[in-house]
Amino acid sequence: MLVHKIEEVGANVKEWKKQGFTIGIVPTMGALHAGHASLIKKAVEKCDKVIVSVFVNPIQFGPSEDFDKYPRTLEADVELAESIGADIIFAPSADEMYGEGQRLSNDTLTYVVPPFFFVNKLCGKSRVGHFDGVCTVVMKLFNITQADYGFFGQKDAQQLIIIRKMVKDLNVPIELIGCPIVREENGLALSSRNKYLDEKGREDALVLSKILNNIKSCYDKGINNIDALKETAFSFLKDVHELEYLEFVDKDNLEEKEVADDNTLVLIACRVQGVRLIDNILLNNINF
Amino acid sequence: MLVHKIEEVGANVKEWKKQGFTIGIVPTMGALHAGHASLIKKAVEKCDKVIVSVFVNPIQFGPSEDFDKYPRTLEADVELAESIGADIIFAPSADEMYGEGQRLSNDTLTYVVPPFFFVNKLCGKSRVGHFDGVCTVVMKLFNITQADYGFFGQKDAQQLIIIRKMVKDLNVPIELIGCPIVREENGLALSSRNKYLDEKGREDALVLSKILNNIKSCYDKGINNIDALKETAFSFLKDVHELEYLEFVDKDNLEEKEVADDNTLVLIACRVQGVRLIDNILLNNINF
Repeated sequence: MLVHKIEEVGANVKEWKKQGFTIGIVPTMGALHAGHASLIKKAVEKCDKVIVSVFVNPIQFGPSEDFDKYPRTLEADVELAESIGADIIFAPSADEMYGEGQRLSNDTLTYVVPPFFFVNKLCGKSRVGHFDGVCTVVMKLFNITQADYGFFGQKDAQQLIIIRKMVKDLNVPIELIGCPIVREENGLALSSRNKYLDEKGREDALVLSKILNNIKSCYDKGINNIDALKETAFSFLKDVHELEYLEFVDKDNLEEKEVADDNTLVLIACRVQGVRLIDNILLNNINF
Repeated sequence: MLVHKIEEVGANVKEWKKQGFTIGIVPTMGALHAGHASLIKKAVEKCDKVIVSVFVNPIQFGPSEDFDKYPRTLEADVELAESIGADIIFAPSADEMYGEGQRLSNDTLTYVVPPFFFVNKLCGKSRVGHFDGVCTVVMKLFNITQADYGFFGQKDAQQLIIIRKMVKDLNVPIELIGCPIVREENGLALSSRNKYLDEKGREDALVLSKILNNIKSCYDKGINNIDALKETAFSFLKDVHELEYLEFVDKDNLEEKEVADDNTLVLIACRVQGVRLIDNILLNNINF
């Protein structure tokens, strides 16, 4: 069922709670692909009722980012989510989420602001304010849906770790479930932004997973010196790749690692054809 | 029942929810007086189960403020709250609330940050960061208790308005109940900080309510020019009074008023014997 209004979600949630159902929320920006589908599937397996939100959240985009051009495919999204078993697809307008005509700034709106230590690195470094917008909208969605479980992809690893931190710091009564990255057969991590790439771009984009897999296999062979691991990685890069970062951090607190170990999360961000792509791998192969 | 652990509150809340009970939260910093008692009484009347939190929240005090000297009277607080009918008095340590040994800063913790427009005035002007700390701890308490109703005194008017804004902006599933200021017979608004005053100080402190009452009666006589209303007010001040502010704002959005009207909230902050006291009055006499 497609729902646009917060109040209508609330009415359903109230009824569900009364009947003792557990509720799962899968927050998305739409343009759903097999990665999202895996989240929805897990939610449907685990929860009595599942809400998939589809909302391209304006306050998590910077002024020079792709808010306007971000793909919007609501009809197909509804079809996919319902085919997997989602009960509600919640697709509010920005006015519905933030108040009609509300100016979207920290001058006029309450924000949830994650710790500086968690945002001052990786994607947060180039996307200033991005995670404030993410935490704020996710907190809103948690409150609107009163969900027992929240499902997030590990592809947005920094996001997942920051939302975990938010849930812990603010005692949010929800359990978070991180779900593994879904990839094309050739290794490319699924992303709604892959749509911006042409055929050559998709080929060039394989460098991200290639670098990560190479680092992992070097680590498995016993190399834990991060400079050495990075150096072999750099050899994969060509002129078509603008590397933004390649970092080794602790999977729980995002602290920079001095030596690679089983708790190390390796993250990469790289532009291909002007499109900013991200990927990551955990060196012990276990979900986080 | 006195409870120190978040987990123990959670276990009770879970059981209560299962039984369909409504839950009220009365957040306090302890040193309970008849003002708090009126909040607890209202909560007991309205809700099946009532939690009174007693927590002197370090992150809402500035470095030069009275965190260390703030009165702590837990034993008496428990007795009072229970005598009115509170089910749980929740008195956590700072370690319990923020994590053991956790450094308390926005470098390491997720904060709820109210809009700049709401904090850049009145008490927020001199107490930088105060309302960030308030919103953060109140959000935590709302989440820990999963309360249906939250009870707040109108004496901390800016706080109540900011928390209302937070609840709206973040879709927090709680209804807020603002409760009238409780006063001594002579008009002095009850405050835990009144304990810092000696007899002469308490006498001098009457200036706050006198000024507000005078403004109200002038307004009732038809004067709505704010400069004129302020001028008569200033005539009450003596050398012993350090006025911090006397402001006329809209009761909903804290916008400065140009002309006094029925939606006008008049707020005053004044130091007496070095103690910072606040008071306020709504010109239409109705609760907000």
